[in-house]
Amino acid sequence: MRYADRMSRVGPSAIRDLLRHGADPAIISFGGGYPDPALFPTDDLRAVYDELLAGDPSALQYCPSNGLPSLREHVARRLARDGIACGADDVLIIQGAQQGLDLAGKLVLNPGDTVVTENPTFLGALIAFNPLEPTYAPVRTDDDGMDPADLERVLAESPRARLLYTVPDFQNPTGVTMSLERRRALIDLANRYDLLVVEDTPYRALRYDGEALPTLKSLDTEGRVLHLGSFSKILAPGMRLGWAVASPEILDKLTLLKLAADTQCGTLNMAAVSLYLDRYDIDAHIASVRAVYRDKRDLMLKTLADAFPGTTRFTSPTGGLFTWLTFPEGFDTTAFMRDTALPKARVTYVPGASFFAGEPEHNHARLNFSGLSEEKIVDGLTRLGAHLT
Amino acid sequence: MRYADRMSRVGPSAIRDLLRHGADPAIISFGGGYPDPALFPTDDLRAVYDELLAGDPSALQYCPSNGLPSLREHVARRLARDGIACGADDVLIIQGAQQGLDLAGKLVLNPGDTVVTENPTFLGALIAFNPLEPTYAPVRTDDDGMDPADLERVLAESPRARLLYTVPDFQNPTGVTMSLERRRALIDLANRYDLLVVEDTPYRALRYDGEALPTLKSLDTEGRVLHLGSFSKILAPGMRLGWAVASPEILDKLTLLKLAADTQCGTLNMAAVSLYLDRYDIDAHIASVRAVYRDKRDLMLKTLADAFPGTTRFTSPTGGLFTWLTFPEGFDTTAFMRDTALPKARVTYVPGASFFAGEPEHNHARLNFSGLSEEKIVDGLTRLGAHLT
Repeated sequence: MRYADRMSRVGPSAIRDLLRHGADPAIISFGGGYPDPALFPTDDLRAVYDELLAGDPSALQYCPSNGLPSLREHVARRLARDGIACGADDVLIIQGAQQGLDLAGKLVLNPGDTVVTENPTFLGALIAFNPLEPTYAPVRTDDDGMDPADLERVLAESPRARLLYTVPDFQNPTGVTMSLERRRALIDLANRYDLLVVEDTPYRALRYDGEALPTLKSLDTEGRVLHLGSFSKILAPGMRLGWAVASPEILDKLTLLKLAADTQCGTLNMAAVSLYLDRYDIDAHIASVRAVYRDKRDLMLKTLADAFPGTTRFTSPTGGLFTWLTFPEGFDTTAFMRDTALPKARVTYVPGASFFAGEPEHNHARLNFSGLSEEKIVDGLTRLGAHLT
Repeated sequence: MRYADRMSRVGPSAIRDLLRHGADPAIISFGGGYPDPALFPTDDLRAVYDELLAGDPSALQYCPSNGLPSLREHVARRLARDGIACGADDVLIIQGAQQGLDLAGKLVLNPGDTVVTENPTFLGALIAFNPLEPTYAPVRTDDDGMDPADLERVLAESPRARLLYTVPDFQNPTGVTMSLERRRALIDLANRYDLLVVEDTPYRALRYDGEALPTLKSLDTEGRVLHLGSFSKILAPGMRLGWAVASPEILDKLTLLKLAADTQCGTLNMAAVSLYLDRYDIDAHIASVRAVYRDKRDLMLKTLADAFPGTTRFTSPTGGLFTWLTFPEGFDTTAFMRDTALPKARVTYVPGASFFAGEPEHNHARLNFSGLSEEKIVDGLTRLGAHLT
């Protein structure tokens, strides 16, 4: 069988292999990006599905490809409260924010065009963009996010730059948040270099300290920010629902691409989330999730300080699901995983090399704290630390 | 904003516009391809969601990107009974069969490669393939499906033919079924010309007369048939679940493309359909659906014969959701819709021109019978017929 050229860019991923290890109950996995299932509002969702399926079959039928109007209305109201001026018609419901990456790439990328990313960046975004055969231009990223001076250098050297991908809040994998000054600088550069900015915000509502910064979309002066969000981390990932907000012209094209890709999201799940938002207080729910994750983050950072050698650095995220470890130069986290962490400590993480769109650095690891119990956080990190000292 | 080249192939579709008309209750729409919601097993699905959400939150969590193992097992067992030798690992769960078209196109199509189709063919397939910038080679199609002699001529003239798309059972839009002899001839030609055959079977279980013919997948000698199916027409479309079955190499690549496109299908819906298949007799359910649709088909064909002029020909489908009308040469169903059917008869259908991948013929229409009440079938066709005579 002859495959399309793009298939040379589509291969097995570290994420997939790790999901496999994560299934072994003897192994403590810091690898996934899973929310804690004990926090899902399962009883409330049960009541909602029960009400929806009591007689009226319309939630099981097809619906418009841009999504159920009542859910788009809810999303628009929530985003408006977060400073994004929009209405229901500015919202497209998508199969998790991940689908937004596939659609955004299809919208603007010809083979050989350049995607500008944080360095390191979200592995799932690389997986989504790779079939579109782009090149990547990684931008230096520190504790305040993407460095505008380096972004400007990169853009000046990248005549085919079309799409800038960023997770401004509690980035995956590093956990860092882009400062307000840098957000403004990014919008300014995107305007000058005619980029589509893809702002991916799956963790935005999961802030544990300080005040929220404005979204890039709220700072957008030329309608070139595509804002993506998701119910996966604030409600539950198993319903696969997210949203895209963009200018009318862009949203219309994304809606056509959505229709082509899979017709529509599941009507029943959209109706269920919409009814959940009618009946329950999701902000109160999110506050309770935040409280639990804040404690887990604190415990992870404290245990890392206690159990790991002083030469290991780690980020102190103010939200999200991850911290990012940096070991001394020359330490290879992929080799350590294979030789020590998995067989001896019985612990997994994501080796950092996967998150680099360009030249990989081998001395990093991404650790998730949301999906594990407090006991496993301490146990797993202590086991891992014992093999590091 | 500069868009990718593929966007020149992505535009508003007749399907989308028709869904809009379908929302007006004063208009009788034969346009959609909707199942009858009164037939959805709503009570049984209510019980299933209730059982799933009683305590255990795992149905709301992420799961493997190829789909929930229990659902893949159910699908494999059903397909094995239909003559397709496969196990759970040969099945990929997808977001309706429509997603299988997007993934199949990504797998084998470079821009300018040729998709071979029935003439006319399913509009949704053209919508799915268009962003991949193919050319199309339509093959003469009659009451026994795609004509092998014409297929051979087309393949000899199409050096870049890579993908053959067919709906062998109760085709959309014509309702015709490919004969066994032609199925064998098609496999033989696909082998000789090194094609990926995409066998789309959303209506296969909805047979109203006669015996099922073997699937193309069951006749596949070289592992080049990708078999697509869906729960949309036999259970409910609002859960967005279908399946893909292919050789291990192809399925592995499709699974990677699925991960890139949207991570996975909804865990909760997969768990619900799997539990429904544990608890209830879907074959008995399908039998009851078939009985209702058989009556509707009979009523539509009888009403067409009674209310339409004798110069209107129509197919007599032995299954599926559609009949295909042919008016005399020179009759333009798009103009008639705009000038008469919509404003005067207050009836919609899909004008046939949309279904032609090559040169459109303007004197056809697709009529759906599954989604309408018997009263509306008679009323709508009588109103339409009154304007034709």
